[in-house]
Amino acid sequence: MKVLLTGASGHVGQAILGDLADEYEWRLLDLEHPGHDAPGEVFVGSVTDEELVAEAVEGVDAVIHLAGDPRPEAGWDSVLENNINGTYVVFKAAADEGVGRIAFASSNHAVGAFETEGLIPDIYRTDSTFRLDGSELPRPGNLYGVSKATGELLGRWLHDTFETSVACVRIGNLTKDHPPKDYERGQAMWLSYPDCAHLFDRCLQASYGYLIVYGISNNDRRYYSLEPARTMLGYQPQDNSAEFE
Amino acid sequence: MKVLLTGASGHVGQAILGDLADEYEWRLLDLEHPGHDAPGEVFVGSVTDEELVAEAVEGVDAVIHLAGDPRPEAGWDSVLENNINGTYVVFKAAADEGVGRIAFASSNHAVGAFETEGLIPDIYRTDSTFRLDGSELPRPGNLYGVSKATGELLGRWLHDTFETSVACVRIGNLTKDHPPKDYERGQAMWLSYPDCAHLFDRCLQASYGYLIVYGISNNDRRYYSLEPARTMLGYQPQDNSAEFE
Repeated sequence: MKVLLTGASGHVGQAILGDLADEYEWRLLDLEHPGHDAPGEVFVGSVTDEELVAEAVEGVDAVIHLAGDPRPEAGWDSVLENNINGTYVVFKAAADEGVGRIAFASSNHAVGAFETEGLIPDIYRTDSTFRLDGSELPRPGNLYGVSKATGELLGRWLHDTFETSVACVRIGNLTKDHPPKDYERGQAMWLSYPDCAHLFDRCLQASYGYLIVYGISNNDRRYYSLEPARTMLGYQPQDNSAEFE
Repeated sequence: MKVLLTGASGHVGQAILGDLADEYEWRLLDLEHPGHDAPGEVFVGSVTDEELVAEAVEGVDAVIHLAGDPRPEAGWDSVLENNINGTYVVFKAAADEGVGRIAFASSNHAVGAFETEGLIPDIYRTDSTFRLDGSELPRPGNLYGVSKATGELLGRWLHDTFETSVACVRIGNLTKDHPPKDYERGQAMWLSYPDCAHLFDRCLQASYGYLIVYGISNNDRRYYSLEPARTMLGYQPQDNSAEFE
């Protein structure tokens, strides 16, 4: 199975390649070259470059689209161009090429404004029953979150228009080796590197039409439901931030 | 009450001004001059012109934001710039100026892909119980619809960040004098000019935080619920497409 991975050099891309380098035939696209031991054909440039993207999607079976400005504090001009326009360019090129499946890195920031003064820090704690499950309307906490929720909309449009299978993963707090320390919010939405790779592997293997799931480990603390990812993707997370407290 | 109306020369703007010209102190912004008998101060230019928009919102109490590329078939470059970026420019300028209230012209196209082959034309008929009420995740039928749903996201972000009151009105099929003929879909989402003016009047008068409502008349045929607009805005539509069949 030939898979284009955009944003291959970022944290999420590295988590995915860390466990899945040998499982797929990779094409890797990023602004920076991921190094000469990169496990696949490399395309250097921006996802807003239509020609480059058209070349990169040629003949692939699936796309994992991670590329974009990853900063929660990113300004409007950057997220408009890199995240909103960039996602359109990738999605449309994939549809034009007849690619059947896209996994999209959305973000917890698409729903960050649910974390109101009245609810935090209670919802980060194990005795809270507050849960988001992806069926709620987004409440972006910043313009980066607006851009990610817009990517989800573009995915919905793509699925309805071209029948592409689209999985949007609202990635929590991805950190290597252990969860963030002294940061309840980060522990509640921790995603370990192995669980991240496994989740995107499921996005490449499972059968679905369009879905939005939360990408977190099996944390005792959490306010995102794991059920949609478990039932629709067969996601079985192995890590839990509570084991590091 | 001083109100900036963007897209004042379009159909929705003309419907609003037709009934409400004397009810508010208007500022009118459009690409084209709305004529020398325009009922307010005129600003000619694009909503993507930050300087012009900053000037136009200065000192207003509310904004009705209608401007943008209105074509359902509009291409990505146009909706990205005119609708998505233009809405950000207007919303952010309003927030920076401390404007407390925004009514935003969203569209039925934000949910157009709910109208699947399996559901139409049944849902356009009076014996159907299928209803959308604004709590559902959008399913844009085209890129114009994506841009309108993105405007709703920007409105949500604005409300959560700046406490601006934001009403998103998913406008149905606005036609003057009578509903579309021989067009069940258009009759199911007909919005008469007087009901349109009344609905935006309610958006300027009612108390709310953030809401999404459907903007249609009291049609016998409909698959959009009127209840949210009735209960949250006090909307009392007077027209019904059935009276013209």
